[in-house]
Amino acid sequence: MQNFNHLVSIKDIDKEMIESILKRAKEIENNPKEFAHRMDGKILSTIFFEPSTRTRLSFESAMLRLGGKVLGFSDPKTSSVKKGESIADTIRMAHSYSDVIVMRHYLEGSGRVASEYSKVPVISGGTGIQEHPTQALLDLYTMKKEFGDLNGLTIGLLGDLRYGRTIPSLLYAFAKYENIKVYLYSPDQLRARMTVLSDIEGKLDYSVEEDLQQTIGELDVLYVTRVQKERFPDLSTYERVKGSFIITPDTLSDVKEKMIVMHPLPRVGEISYEVDEMSQARYFEQARNGVWTRMAILDLILEEN
Amino acid sequence: MQNFNHLVSIKDIDKEMIESILKRAKEIENNPKEFAHRMDGKILSTIFFEPSTRTRLSFESAMLRLGGKVLGFSDPKTSSVKKGESIADTIRMAHSYSDVIVMRHYLEGSGRVASEYSKVPVISGGTGIQEHPTQALLDLYTMKKEFGDLNGLTIGLLGDLRYGRTIPSLLYAFAKYENIKVYLYSPDQLRARMTVLSDIEGKLDYSVEEDLQQTIGELDVLYVTRVQKERFPDLSTYERVKGSFIITPDTLSDVKEKMIVMHPLPRVGEISYEVDEMSQARYFEQARNGVWTRMAILDLILEEN
Amino acid sequence: MQNFNHLVSIKDIDKEMIESILKRAKEIENNPKEFAHRMDGKILSTIFFEPSTRTRLSFESAMLRLGGKVLGFSDPKTSSVKKGESIADTIRMAHSYSDVIVMRHYLEGSGRVASEYSKVPVISGGTGIQEHPTQALLDLYTMKKEFGDLNGLTIGLLGDLRYGRTIPSLLYAFAKYENIKVYLYSPDQLRARMTVLSDIEGKLDYSVEEDLQQTIGELDVLYVTRVQKERFPDLSTYERVKGSFIITPDTLSDVKEKMIVMHPLPRVGEISYEVDEMSQARYFEQARNGVWTRMAILDLILEEN
Repeated sequence: MQNFNHLVSIKDIDKEMIESILKRAKEIENNPKEFAHRMDGKILSTIFFEPSTRTRLSFESAMLRLGGKVLGFSDPKTSSVKKGESIADTIRMAHSYSDVIVMRHYLEGSGRVASEYSKVPVISGGTGIQEHPTQALLDLYTMKKEFGDLNGLTIGLLGDLRYGRTIPSLLYAFAKYENIKVYLYSPDQLRARMTVLSDIEGKLDYSVEEDLQQTIGELDVLYVTRVQKERFPDLSTYERVKGSFIITPDTLSDVKEKMIVMHPLPRVGEISYEVDEMSQARYFEQARNGVWTRMAILDLILEEN
Repeated sequence: MQNFNHLVSIKDIDKEMIESILKRAKEIENNPKEFAHRMDGKILSTIFFEPSTRTRLSFESAMLRLGGKVLGFSDPKTSSVKKGESIADTIRMAHSYSDVIVMRHYLEGSGRVASEYSKVPVISGGTGIQEHPTQALLDLYTMKKEFGDLNGLTIGLLGDLRYGRTIPSLLYAFAKYENIKVYLYSPDQLRARMTVLSDIEGKLDYSVEEDLQQTIGELDVLYVTRVQKERFPDLSTYERVKGSFIITPDTLSDVKEKMIVMHPLPRVGEISYEVDEMSQARYFEQARNGVWTRMAILDLILEEN
Repeated sequence: MQNFNHLVSIKDIDKEMIESILKRAKEIENNPKEFAHRMDGKILSTIFFEPSTRTRLSFESAMLRLGGKVLGFSDPKTSSVKKGESIADTIRMAHSYSDVIVMRHYLEGSGRVASEYSKVPVISGGTGIQEHPTQALLDLYTMKKEFGDLNGLTIGLLGDLRYGRTIPSLLYAFAKYENIKVYLYSPDQLRARMTVLSDIEGKLDYSVEEDLQQTIGELDVLYVTRVQKERFPDLSTYERVKGSFIITPDTLSDVKEKMIVMHPLPRVGEISYEVDEMSQARYFEQARNGVWTRMAILDLILEEN
């Protein structure tokens, strides 16, 4: 198995490593008490240059449940970062104060820079619009819990496939498996970026689809992301397309029996509240899985370092 | 004794439950070491949609002193809440990450909504202008420590009785006792709301008073709250009335020997600094009592859940 | 040895106390495990009225590494402080919730006020432009680790000597030793304040220098601070002088063999990145020393209280 020094891109880890993380997450979920002192005396820094609730709090919960402690900042305005410090210098501070770092930063490549300057493991909590590897891993964990195996799944990704940073991470992960089929549903303006698609070309069976209803019956997983008004050049375009990207009970009238709906959350209208009560809704469970998956990531990355 | 699943309104708990909380607070204050590991391995989420120092920090101190751990946010701008997430979804996140939730929210009814969606106990840290149940409980604890029994007390509430969220909680609590008498002193614009007064009609002996000096000699407790300039339609009205709601040594020249002055803090001029040195001042002690009372609330609510 | 109840000014502690802190820091750095439970059950409040990353996070790391816990606020906008509460009242809150307080405040004298109202030890994390005693102590620790003894050193202070709050603390500390020589290098607008210099007059051998290059060859330590654009009446003055206060490999072409360069960080261009790789660079090590020194301060101050 490869080294696990940092986690800044799904591209850096192989399928074996992904499966190790998912396996450890399952062990932890089955028996959290056994892992309750794995991080005794260890400190996690959470260094967030952009707003976050789920990613930051679920990492904090994960660290606390492993017996560790947490420090950090989530608002650069209250930190020296506002004085214009470089990422390298901020990271050299954080590695002096802690044993592992989770960083979210708005710039592409920021995770890589951080990992190169850090003496302790760096985990990306979101890197620009480029990647969000731990979100992708908890998504995989959710799918694996549901279906036992990722191979053979048909997965629809819907919404903002251009700026949603988890989308590239998911595609890179899917491409490591033999037999996953992906349908991409999005407004024209929000299609997956060419640079991302060229990375998976020939490695993943995907197709860009116009109409969710035509293929929804084939899906095992419908993964919904938020379509933000601000991404559109004019409001009229937004108003015209938004309806096609809102999931209601009607949308799900003709799906596979065991099909599930996922969403990284927070949602703001993309999935109607009526869907919460349906058997397909798996997004709250998915959020809970974030804690087990992030415990597994912390546990494995500190085991090696 | 009734169930103690959540604490979002004083209306939901009976006198027996209140007395259990006050009793537990006393046990904890007398012997904090005995309770130092009650929350080992437990996590508190503090979810604050409005600024707070005392409520949030005293809950955090309470949880830490019980051996537990804390995570949360106190600034919605640095959390996904700014993206427009519903209270229900935020709570479903928080209950995945923690064992008990303290939430402050500016909307009436927010505490109730939160408790309905949460799988773990929800404690209100302030609900709009509607209620602030834990502040009321620590106030009761302070009075009980002073006088031994709440029955038979004469209590003056002074200042902003309209928008101060602790006032309704206090009145609902007083109404559960047999023999408490309440005087209400406020500018006309800041009188207690009719909806609150109708809730206690016939259950609590209260009267609206024009002049503090006429009845101050009868009081066992004078409970002062802040009169905010912004509550007045024009500055001249504010300037005219504000003097009547500032407590100085002169105000207290003719009071009962064991009478005490309380204030939920922070104060901004409502009680002059000279009063700090007087035997009546009990507001700093009251703040300290917040820790014991909140430890008791956390301890009892997790004992049941 | 004198009492060590608070740490709000270097003026309040004698050389013996400084040496005790540096000695304890060394013991902790050599054997951190031995100190890992010194603060079990203790709580630190970090009360920051101004942005900070290093000071706050390194104190938090220090407290966690001693086995203690941390609460506090770093953004007055999310706390009741924005309502206009006095420092005295805020401190009376903090001492009810914790066992030791670290406070940063923009007002001169704020640390002193805090210490007078607090029942628990108060440590200044920066007091206006007046002092930053713990930064000075970690700087002394860095020098002592390097040279074994502070006596006999020649130290250059460069940059903003007027508004940099660590400068007075360093000068007060140097003045307690017998044989330290100090060169002061700064733009005219940013010279050390007369009130500070008159405090050390006759106690410390210092001289104001025009040109770094003339005396750099004598230095054991070059301590660099940031020159902020905003301090200048006009941009042209800033542009004219700034070059003289940027350290590059060229600047260091003719220095003593064991000379070191220090900086409290964050830096924004005052030291070029090429210097990071040079043998003189000691600023990242200095940041790490902050944790050991602050552990020592917490440990000693709570030993006495």
